[in-house]
Amino acid sequence: MRRRRFFTKAGTIVAGALTAPQLLRASVQRFDWRMVMVIPKGLPVWGTGVQRFAEQVAAMTDHRLNIKVFGAGELIPALQTFDACQAGLVEMAHSSAYYWIGKLPAAAYFTAVPFGMDALGMKAWLVAGGGQQLWDELYGNHGLLAIPAGNTGVQMGGWFNRKINTADDFRGLKMRIPGLGGAVIEKLGAKPILVAGGEIYTNLTTGVIDAAEWVGPHHDYLLGLHKAARYYYYPGWHEPGPVLELMINKRAWQGLPPAYQAIVKAAAASLDNDMLSEWAALDALSFAKIQNETKAEILPFPKEVLDVLKVKAGEVRQQVSQTSPLAAKIAASFDAFQHQYERHQDVALGAYLRAREGS
Amino acid sequence: MRRRRFFTKAGTIVAGALTAPQLLRASVQRFDWRMVMVIPKGLPVWGTGVQRFAEQVAAMTDHRLNIKVFGAGELIPALQTFDACQAGLVEMAHSSAYYWIGKLPAAAYFTAVPFGMDALGMKAWLVAGGGQQLWDELYGNHGLLAIPAGNTGVQMGGWFNRKINTADDFRGLKMRIPGLGGAVIEKLGAKPILVAGGEIYTNLTTGVIDAAEWVGPHHDYLLGLHKAARYYYYPGWHEPGPVLELMINKRAWQGLPPAYQAIVKAAAASLDNDMLSEWAALDALSFAKIQNETKAEILPFPKEVLDVLKVKAGEVRQQVSQTSPLAAKIAASFDAFQHQYERHQDVALGAYLRAREGS
Repeated sequence: MRRRRFFTKAGTIVAGALTAPQLLRASVQRFDWRMVMVIPKGLPVWGTGVQRFAEQVAAMTDHRLNIKVFGAGELIPALQTFDACQAGLVEMAHSSAYYWIGKLPAAAYFTAVPFGMDALGMKAWLVAGGGQQLWDELYGNHGLLAIPAGNTGVQMGGWFNRKINTADDFRGLKMRIPGLGGAVIEKLGAKPILVAGGEIYTNLTTGVIDAAEWVGPHHDYLLGLHKAARYYYYPGWHEPGPVLELMINKRAWQGLPPAYQAIVKAAAASLDNDMLSEWAALDALSFAKIQNETKAEILPFPKEVLDVLKVKAGEVRQQVSQTSPLAAKIAASFDAFQHQYERHQDVALGAYLRAREGS
Repeated sequence: MRRRRFFTKAGTIVAGALTAPQLLRASVQRFDWRMVMVIPKGLPVWGTGVQRFAEQVAAMTDHRLNIKVFGAGELIPALQTFDACQAGLVEMAHSSAYYWIGKLPAAAYFTAVPFGMDALGMKAWLVAGGGQQLWDELYGNHGLLAIPAGNTGVQMGGWFNRKINTADDFRGLKMRIPGLGGAVIEKLGAKPILVAGGEIYTNLTTGVIDAAEWVGPHHDYLLGLHKAARYYYYPGWHEPGPVLELMINKRAWQGLPPAYQAIVKAAAASLDNDMLSEWAALDALSFAKIQNETKAEILPFPKEVLDVLKVKAGEVRQQVSQTSPLAAKIAASFDAFQHQYERHQDVALGAYLRAREGS
């Protein structure tokens, strides 16, 4: 049940029998919003981060903008998130744009594309490279808007119960891998399968699937995937810096006072910052555990395999760009930005990592 | 002149002859704060970002927390920022902790240390690795607190008017380079010199200095440094991910309502996120210009030089860690975190960059 709302404008004070403090509290409109997620509410870093976001917004608005958070399936099924938010059944959602590539193929560009940009490149494109405006255009057509609100950082390549020595080893491989990464390995004869996080462990141990990528060392370790498959491959060529999204129903957004819009944006940026940082710290911690405490064999994909994956990724990206004029525009912006970003990154972080390894 | 302040607490309404809207506005305390910077107010990305931060805070508080921003020298000289904020002459400052290593050597760890962590590693240590608590301890002893509020990303190694082929080429070199980076090249016989940004160009062209590092491709290009020196070296081993700080007088902070504290924190996180993103985009753009439109020779430091710099950087870091028990505690936390972070980074972003270069 929603609590009573007060609709008052400056100068139109509905005083009645209210005491002075009540009058003051009533003077600012109150909003009770609902937000759905595509993952369980308690999932560390992600779910907990989103709950902290809601608490921060409440704190910043003196509890006048209250966002009640629902995990996947609590209010609606995970994959109905986009439709529910579009229809205004909920005001907000926290998800990842590549869940919606079935209806909007170009949405992939706002999460991650294979052999695309890392977290910083994605942020730079969205904040200062025209990416956000394109996202506004893509979602605006559906009565929605979305802003970045989290990033996992570079993922691992996944857990495999057999070795990948050549590109041919993907033939017939049943792998849990969503999005465009799945389309890429399909071109090598693999069978990408969608499996919810909670079912990966069992499916891997029973042989329903031969391989799976989940999130990264921290979440993989928590799921116990090192007990379900032997080979842990890197790097995560398919998701080098996946952006998580805060999706908002546009009409609801337009009903917020400018101060609350600014607060939601700042809280989302804070979540974006903190979630990536937290993941970086916990992935490093759990990676050390996987390395030191488990029997996992941690292996790089062979160069030959990566080269083939890269060619196929180019084909998949090309196909996505041909799905609509807007998709073509988004792809062109992304590709040009990536090209320029990488040239500088090579003398910046790339060169720095090489310098550190050097000795 | 500061406008009138209303000091009212819930339940103690000072109504008098005020109209209802005035009453409502008066019911929330208003704060007029001042903030000083260590750089000119109009410096792109940095100065403009800080001004946007102040505007955001005003928007989020319905102009009840107003922060007036002063560039370096407008209110006090840049290097008196720490003292001014500590004394409460100003409530806030935007700077960089390594400006204060004269009085607090360990402050360097909260900006950047030579061969330290990149922007993401710094964020991860501060947000989720215990770094913020140590910063609180270091500054808390001086009546201050600071939170991250910007990052330039990996810098370049600097502009040189002669080639650096061996470590010996640093002997006698007069270089504009602040912080611990200066201490490192001093060990190679160079002379680190502090020169304000506005004087670098002239000093380089007249031979007062032989080399200079400033910020990165975007700001270097704006200063025209490609016309003042020929060789542009990379990577910026001395500042791999320098954190900019929002410094706050602790007593002033404690006088803010919790909602405004939450708003300042979120706005700082937003600035942190946006500034790094903006720098990444503009550095890439200006790097392409330097590469395509100027006569600059863009060169990597030779491996032998980097190896020597790394050894000397280790000595400098060791010396800093011995300046106080708290410095030792900070260094131990930083070093352990960096070690774990790098092991994971090597299979994450490191491996991804290698994979991309591969073909």
